[in-house]
Amino acid sequence: MKKAVVLLSGGLDSTTLLYWAVNEGYTPYVLSFDYGQRHKKELIFAKKTCDKLNVEHKIIDITSIHELLSGSALTDESVSIPEEHYSHKSQKVTVVPNRNAIMLNIAIGYAVSMGADRVFYAAHYNDREIYPDCRAEFINSQNETAKLANDDEELEIIAPFVGKTKADIVKIAGGLGVPFGDTWSCYKGKAKACGVCGTCRERIEAFGLAGQKDAIEYK
Amino acid sequence: MKKAVVLLSGGLDSTTLLYWAVNEGYTPYVLSFDYGQRHKKELIFAKKTCDKLNVEHKIIDITSIHELLSGSALTDESVSIPEEHYSHKSQKVTVVPNRNAIMLNIAIGYAVSMGADRVFYAAHYNDREIYPDCRAEFINSQNETAKLANDDEELEIIAPFVGKTKADIVKIAGGLGVPFGDTWSCYKGKAKACGVCGTCRERIEAFGLAGQKDAIEYK
Repeated sequence: MKKAVVLLSGGLDSTTLLYWAVNEGYTPYVLSFDYGQRHKKELIFAKKTCDKLNVEHKIIDITSIHELLSGSALTDESVSIPEEHYSHKSQKVTVVPNRNAIMLNIAIGYAVSMGADRVFYAAHYNDREIYPDCRAEFINSQNETAKLANDDEELEIIAPFVGKTKADIVKIAGGLGVPFGDTWSCYKGKAKACGVCGTCRERIEAFGLAGQKDAIEYK
Repeated sequence: MKKAVVLLSGGLDSTTLLYWAVNEGYTPYVLSFDYGQRHKKELIFAKKTCDKLNVEHKIIDITSIHELLSGSALTDESVSIPEEHYSHKSQKVTVVPNRNAIMLNIAIGYAVSMGADRVFYAAHYNDREIYPDCRAEFINSQNETAKLANDDEELEIIAPFVGKTKADIVKIAGGLGVPFGDTWSCYKGKAKACGVCGTCRERIEAFGLAGQKDAIEYK
């Protein structure tokens, strides 16, 4: 049995990654985080997916660090969610400083603690311009750091989508039978996806490029 | 004004480091963590020091990750605190997987968020055998990872004690006027320090080697 920790936000990318890991024969131990995000709604989707796949899922409350990582549109109600294209520099306000590194390091501690040596991370190619902690250079460096921090050469972060676009992921998801309606992307986290925030625009574009039909409704 | 985030456990090493940072002209933003440690008592000492120095102090509750990082004698009541010498391999049970990397990454996010580019970390030479995340190789690698994660070349973890023994730190503390009685080391966290756990033994030995008199009482 190959054990792996999988970071799942409830979005399309990490949900597809979870299906991928299961398909590769891993027994996933899934972690989601409540970090005070506006779109906390994504956690309901994360839980739905884990229930459906019947895999272990923990939602870890790290809202205490919210006050430390202020000023991001994702966590701070006083900052507007930008409505430009996902790769546009206006999306920089959605960066939560070091967020993914914090989540990865908690996942690494969990992996070491329970004897898994793989951590799955859904960073992808479209993220690279806006989010430095989604780039291959960061992941490689974080991998080395994790091995040194735990004296464990076997430990490894697996990010199979780091060179793939969101459209590639939609195709992979289609192949794996991921129910698109079980995933949530919109940064606004209201009843229906807004259709105009950066991540909604990216999702709509990706489905168009992949020639697939999405299952979520837009406002 | 040079801003720096300082990680303070309330123990001798990090308290000395805080005095050091203040002496170097930094304005410290101090972070302590409640991670479900048995010796939570150290946090009272951390607060006392920050109050005395009149510096900003936040105690961040990350007890939610406790369930993920099980099996350490520091957090799990079912595991006994070892009473051998600090460097002895029996101390391995006091390792909390990836703990310091998690704390450092939260500190890095805080530093980026408020425009500080230094994070002070009190890892020292005696820690190196037991705790891989106290070694210079880890710190150098973590430094590179942090720069990449935040696209910030200026960001740096400062660990001035990494090549210094605990006895060296006692001497430095003496020179800086650190009130030894404001620091807590014992892993058991009872009314008085036990005098027999690894960290008590290390402290007693360090004061002996440094030729200084401690201000705390032992059982």
